[in-house]
Amino acid sequence: MSKRYVDEALSDWMKGNGPDTDVVISSRIRIARNLSSHPFPMLATTEQANEVMEQLTNVAETGQLSELGNFETIKLSQLNELERRVLVEKHLISPNLANESRSGAVLLSENESVSIMVNEEDHLRIQCLYPGFQVKEAWGLANRIDDIFEEVTNYAYDERRGYLTSCPTNVGTGIRSSVMMHLPGLVLSQQINRILSAVTQVGLAVRGIYGEGSEALGNLFQISNQITLGQSEGEIIENLHSVARQIIEHERAARQRLLEESRVRLEDRVYRSYGILSHAMIMDTKEASQRLSDVRLGIDLGLIRNVSPQVMNEMMVLTQPGFLQQVFHEKMTPEQRDIRRAELIRSHLQSESDHGGV
Amino acid sequence: MSKRYVDEALSDWMKGNGPDTDVVISSRIRIARNLSSHPFPMLATTEQANEVMEQLTNVAETGQLSELGNFETIKLSQLNELERRVLVEKHLISPNLANESRSGAVLLSENESVSIMVNEEDHLRIQCLYPGFQVKEAWGLANRIDDIFEEVTNYAYDERRGYLTSCPTNVGTGIRSSVMMHLPGLVLSQQINRILSAVTQVGLAVRGIYGEGSEALGNLFQISNQITLGQSEGEIIENLHSVARQIIEHERAARQRLLEESRVRLEDRVYRSYGILSHAMIMDTKEASQRLSDVRLGIDLGLIRNVSPQVMNEMMVLTQPGFLQQVFHEKMTPEQRDIRRAELIRSHLQSESDHGGV
Repeated sequence: MSKRYVDEALSDWMKGNGPDTDVVISSRIRIARNLSSHPFPMLATTEQANEVMEQLTNVAETGQLSELGNFETIKLSQLNELERRVLVEKHLISPNLANESRSGAVLLSENESVSIMVNEEDHLRIQCLYPGFQVKEAWGLANRIDDIFEEVTNYAYDERRGYLTSCPTNVGTGIRSSVMMHLPGLVLSQQINRILSAVTQVGLAVRGIYGEGSEALGNLFQISNQITLGQSEGEIIENLHSVARQIIEHERAARQRLLEESRVRLEDRVYRSYGILSHAMIMDTKEASQRLSDVRLGIDLGLIRNVSPQVMNEMMVLTQPGFLQQVFHEKMTPEQRDIRRAELIRSHLQSESDHGGV
Repeated sequence: MSKRYVDEALSDWMKGNGPDTDVVISSRIRIARNLSSHPFPMLATTEQANEVMEQLTNVAETGQLSELGNFETIKLSQLNELERRVLVEKHLISPNLANESRSGAVLLSENESVSIMVNEEDHLRIQCLYPGFQVKEAWGLANRIDDIFEEVTNYAYDERRGYLTSCPTNVGTGIRSSVMMHLPGLVLSQQINRILSAVTQVGLAVRGIYGEGSEALGNLFQISNQITLGQSEGEIIENLHSVARQIIEHERAARQRLLEESRVRLEDRVYRSYGILSHAMIMDTKEASQRLSDVRLGIDLGLIRNVSPQVMNEMMVLTQPGFLQQVFHEKMTPEQRDIRRAELIRSHLQSESDHGGV
C-alpha cells in the first residue's frame, strides 16, 4: 500500500478548482448500501465481516471500477492510529470506519475524490467528494459506482421501504448529499441564524464542519438532506441544489454589502488576521479556523492578492491534530501542536508571499 | 517664528540616544521660579503678566543663553489650538501653558531638549528633557539655566521656605525631577504593583504617561520626586537616581526571566503585535500604545531586528490626536483618527522593514 494518502495534504476537493468556490468549498454524495447475504456490520461475526470485505474489495481489484480510474484498496488493519486519523481529517473515511480496524477497508481513487468504505455502519458506503458546487456531478459519479456494485452483488432492498440500512435515518434512497459552504458574510452581518433556520424548515440539516456542537469553526457549514425516505434521488439532489444556490446568492450579497457599507472595518479584520497568521508563534485550532476564514474572505473579495484561495481548505486540514503529527513525525501535546500549527501556517503564508506579497 | 517645532515629530529625547534606553525613555528636570517683583501668574493683571513675559523672554533674546545654543521664543498667542496641542504632545509645554494663550511663552532650544515656559502656573519653568537615563545631566543643565536667570532677575525667595511657588507642593527647591520608564517586563510578570508601591513608600510619585487615571498606556510610567521641601536639590536627584537604577535592574531581570521561562509565549505576543501594527486598518490609541510597547520590548530583547528602538517613542507622540491632525492637515473625528493612526504606523513599519525585514 502506498502511503501518499496519509503523507500528502491535498485531495482534489481541497485544490478548489470548481464552480462557485468563493462560497462552496465542496460537494459530497454518500450512498449507503448493504448486501442481502450478510448481517449488518454491527451484527456480523468477524468471519462474515471478512467475507463482505473480500467480496466488495474484489470489485475494485478485478478491474470493474477501471472505467473510473485507478483505485487502491486500503485495509484499516494496515494503518496505525495516526494514519487513520489523517484519513478522517481529509474526509476520506468516517470516524466510524476509523474505529473499525477489524474488517474495515476503503477503496480510494487516485485523486481522492472517490472513497468507498467497506464495513462502516453499512457494508458499503460510496462517497464522492467534488470541489466547489458540483452536487449533480458528484451524484452522477456516485450513481454510476452504485450501478457497478449492484451489477455484481445483491443489495438488501425492500419494495416498500427501498434500500435497507443499518441506521433507519438512511433507509430509502440511502443517499446523503451535502455541500460544505463558507459563509463569513452571513455570519458577520448576523444573518446566519435566520438563513440556517429557514434551511432547516425545508428539511435540510446544518452543522459546523469542524468544532463541536453548534459552533461552526471557520464559518464553515455543512448543509445536507435529512430525508432519505419518500423522496426520489432526483428530488433530494434538486432540493439541496436549489437551496444551496439561494444561500450562495445571499452570501455574495452579504459580502458586497459589507464591502460597500463597512469596507475599512472589513479590511481591518481581514488584514489583521493575515498579519497574525503570518507572525504568531502559538495558534490553537479555533483561532486558526477563524483567521483562515477571514483571510479566505479577503482573497475572495480581492483584498488579499497572491495568496491562493485554497490556503484555507488546505490549512484547515493540515492543521488538524492528526495531520500536524504526521507532518512533523512526532507525538505532540496540545501545547506543542499550537506551536507547530503556528509554524506551519507562517511558513505556508511566507512561501506564498515570497511569490508576490500581499 | 519657525514652525518646525510643530511640524517635525522627533525631539532629541525621542531619538533615544542615551544610557539605559532599553528601560528609561527620558529624564526630565523642571525648576519652578517666580519673580519677586510681580504677583504669581494666577493673580497678575494682563499688564503685569506681559511685563513678566517681556523681562524673561528678553534673557534669551539678548543672548544670555547663547552659551547653551540657539533658542527661539514662541508666544502662545502666535499658535493656533492644534499647534499648542502638538507642543503638549511632544512634552515641550505643559497643558497648563497651552491654555494660557494670553501672556504665555516658551523659549525652545534647537534640539528641543530645553523648554523654558513663561507664565505657566509660575512665572518661570525651566524644563530639561534628556533621552535615556540622564537625570544628573539634565539637572546640571537646568541648574546652569537657573543660574543665568537668577543673575538677571530677582527670584521670590524666603530664607526659611526656599523658593516660593504658586502651588505649595513646589515650594522649597522648586524642583521636580522625573524619569519616564518602559516597564513591560514588570507588568507582564505581574510585579509592577509591588514595585510601584515600594517606590511610593520612599517618597516618589508614579503615574502613567499617556492615558487617564491609574492606567499606564504602553507600559510607560513616570517616576518623580514628591518632596520639594526639606531636602536639598542634590538629595532629590540622588534619591530619584538610585531608585530608578534599582527599577532598571528589576525590569531587566524580569525580561530575562520571561525570555528564559516563557520564550515562545513572549515571542508570540511580540510578533503578533508586530503583525497587527503592520497590517491593521483601524487602531485606537490604547491598542497602539500596548502593541508599540510589545514591539519595543521585542526590539530590546533582540527578537525583532531592523526596526529602530525609537519607533515606540516616535509613534507614541506621532499618533496622538493633535499630531495626527497636524501630519494629515485635516480635522478628524476619533474614528477618522483611528484609521489615520493605523495608516501612519503601517507606513512607518513598512519603510523600516524595506531596509531589512523582521
